[in-house]
Amino acid sequence: MGTSGNFSAVVSRQPFRLAITASAVHKGQLRAGDVLQCDERGATIGRTAGKPSAETLLHIEIARRRGAGAVLHTHSVWTTVLSDLHAAGGGFAIEGYEMLKGLHGVRSHDHREWIPILANDQDMPRLARRVGETLDRFPEAHAFVLCRHGLYTWGDTLADAERHIEILEFLFETIGRTQASGSRLEASGHAADRSL
Amino acid sequence: MGTSGNFSAVVSRQPFRLAITASAVHKGQLRAGDVLQCDERGATIGRTAGKPSAETLLHIEIARRRGAGAVLHTHSVWTTVLSDLHAAGGGFAIEGYEMLKGLHGVRSHDHREWIPILANDQDMPRLARRVGETLDRFPEAHAFVLCRHGLYTWGDTLADAERHIEILEFLFETIGRTQASGSRLEASGHAADRSL
Amino acid sequence: MGTSGNFSAVVSRQPFRLAITASAVHKGQLRAGDVLQCDERGATIGRTAGKPSAETLLHIEIARRRGAGAVLHTHSVWTTVLSDLHAAGGGFAIEGYEMLKGLHGVRSHDHREWIPILANDQDMPRLARRVGETLDRFPEAHAFVLCRHGLYTWGDTLADAERHIEILEFLFETIGRTQASGSRLEASGHAADRSL
Amino acid sequence: MGTSGNFSAVVSRQPFRLAITASAVHKGQLRAGDVLQCDERGATIGRTAGKPSAETLLHIEIARRRGAGAVLHTHSVWTTVLSDLHAAGGGFAIEGYEMLKGLHGVRSHDHREWIPILANDQDMPRLARRVGETLDRFPEAHAFVLCRHGLYTWGDTLADAERHIEILEFLFETIGRTQASGSRLEASGHAADRSL
Repeated sequence: MGTSGNFSAVVSRQPFRLAITASAVHKGQLRAGDVLQCDERGATIGRTAGKPSAETLLHIEIARRRGAGAVLHTHSVWTTVLSDLHAAGGGFAIEGYEMLKGLHGVRSHDHREWIPILANDQDMPRLARRVGETLDRFPEAHAFVLCRHGLYTWGDTLADAERHIEILEFLFETIGRTQASGSRLEASGHAADRSL
Repeated sequence: MGTSGNFSAVVSRQPFRLAITASAVHKGQLRAGDVLQCDERGATIGRTAGKPSAETLLHIEIARRRGAGAVLHTHSVWTTVLSDLHAAGGGFAIEGYEMLKGLHGVRSHDHREWIPILANDQDMPRLARRVGETLDRFPEAHAFVLCRHGLYTWGDTLADAERHIEILEFLFETIGRTQASGSRLEASGHAADRSL
Repeated sequence: MGTSGNFSAVVSRQPFRLAITASAVHKGQLRAGDVLQCDERGATIGRTAGKPSAETLLHIEIARRRGAGAVLHTHSVWTTVLSDLHAAGGGFAIEGYEMLKGLHGVRSHDHREWIPILANDQDMPRLARRVGETLDRFPEAHAFVLCRHGLYTWGDTLADAERHIEILEFLFETIGRTQASGSRLEASGHAADRSL
Repeated sequence: MGTSGNFSAVVSRQPFRLAITASAVHKGQLRAGDVLQCDERGATIGRTAGKPSAETLLHIEIARRRGAGAVLHTHSVWTTVLSDLHAAGGGFAIEGYEMLKGLHGVRSHDHREWIPILANDQDMPRLARRVGETLDRFPEAHAFVLCRHGLYTWGDTLADAERHIEILEFLFETIGRTQASGSRLEASGHAADRSL
């Protein structure tokens, strides 16, 4: 939607080169000139008209710690709603859904995915450090959320990362709507029992 | 959405031949080579590049017990939300809706459709057996739901099965939203009275 | 959506001739042969392949009592949800919304529109009589709802009737979502005060 | 949606000339002849077929007090729902969201945007005066809402104003859905804690 979100792909590991969408560009109208290259410090390579995304340091942190080939960051209403509702817990769990099987390495619905939530921050170096700490603390996580901001996920390829976005957006909406409906049924005695 | 869901159609009854979508193919980008043929044991017929859908045994179970010409399996947010909210009851009822008249053999809104909910399972032969037991136990059912997974329905033709998907998705969303709103009106004294 | 809903337009008043969509036709794929002509008793004029909509008698009742030039009947999730939540009251009121100004003859948001809700019925002559009684009882009404079925509205032209559908669907969704959110704010002390 | 909403752009400041969409025109089907020019009193310039939008005086008030280059007015379900839920408070606050950074002059998510809500009114000169008082009272506001009517926002250019519409509609939906879900979690002890 509009200028929100940013996308990157690793084009080279030695030396480290990341292709990332320029800042303030409408993501639905990207042209070749709107994608810039950066090194591992976020400095632009080559002669360019625009600035790289303000969140370049976060993409670099994820690409290097997870060995990701592509990193995608999106804003959505349900991501934002859930980040707010679960901020106090530092994250929320998604488990038992068949749709989890599309996440890299997940073979069964009987899987518990913890989605860490970090407080938002305009200080990018500081936020990048906290992102790194979060990735180390949750080595199995496929994604994390910045509170009242958006979702970050990654994959070996752009297609893998895109599939993660699809799956997580679906699950966030499902959980959001279930929570909106479920407590009322619980209050009236219709508790959902997972042991069928 | 993406690689979720799977579709099949019976191309021959003697011998039994089922055409089914291949595993891990994006259902919005199906090409002829993405549809495989199986026999009644789920074994692929002919030389093919892909594997049949992991849920082939479920399609076979439905096609044979119900004499269906086509079987459709879809994932949707509302299906998943309702499957969760009503899992404890083993299913949920939909009655009194004009839209039920689009289901095969239903001539009036004054009809009660019971939607069985089965626990999900990665063991396909075991799940296929439970699907068979469910179909026998509820001979009038037009569909069933796998908890936190999705909807299965069928029909004489692909068009019939597709109409069932449309109708059931509409009704699931209607029921989901009614439940989300209704209990609050009940709590405040505005109980819905069906006897107009 | 699919085969649900039906549309009609009066092509002649003396003799009374109504053009109406045929039964069981996908409304998103209408062709010229899918529109039939009926007289004031619902009998088809001319040689046709299909049957007129099952609800032809309702269209005739509305066209004649209101002098409408076109009658539109649609199914939507929000119409169905609200019909259910308010069935006990025999209808529900919509007032104070700027969007009401698009209804024929309404010049201000300071208008109270009562939407009558009738129980559904498969006996069309009987339902048509009750529709007639409802239209007589509420001469100012621009629309009515069949419970767990759908919305009927009309206008001098198809464009007028279509504008009514747009406006009412918008208002039904707005009211549905407000009711879903509002009672919680009321419970916590944030009552909405209309006297600004 | 349909004939609702209206858009304007300042084409000249001395003399003041505002280009504004004509009244009762379908905004999805605008042609050149549907845009009229007015002076600072709302009187049409030149020979035209239609009348300017009924809300022209509001656009003039905003364009002159804020020095805006374009003014956009839209109706949406979430705007209408929130206007109703928060009417008693005279407005509502949006704070802490990254998406606020797209509003003119806002550099951080750590920003509190107050959205004033005015009662609707068919008396345009009177409403224009109240709009002027509101703009003076809240000099930092980027937008305001007319209760049960819609959203007004503006910008230096049409693109800026359009970006504001996108951002505010996103935030209204996010807040609406959070409020619909949040109170239940609060009631059950899962209070959202902003200090992560």
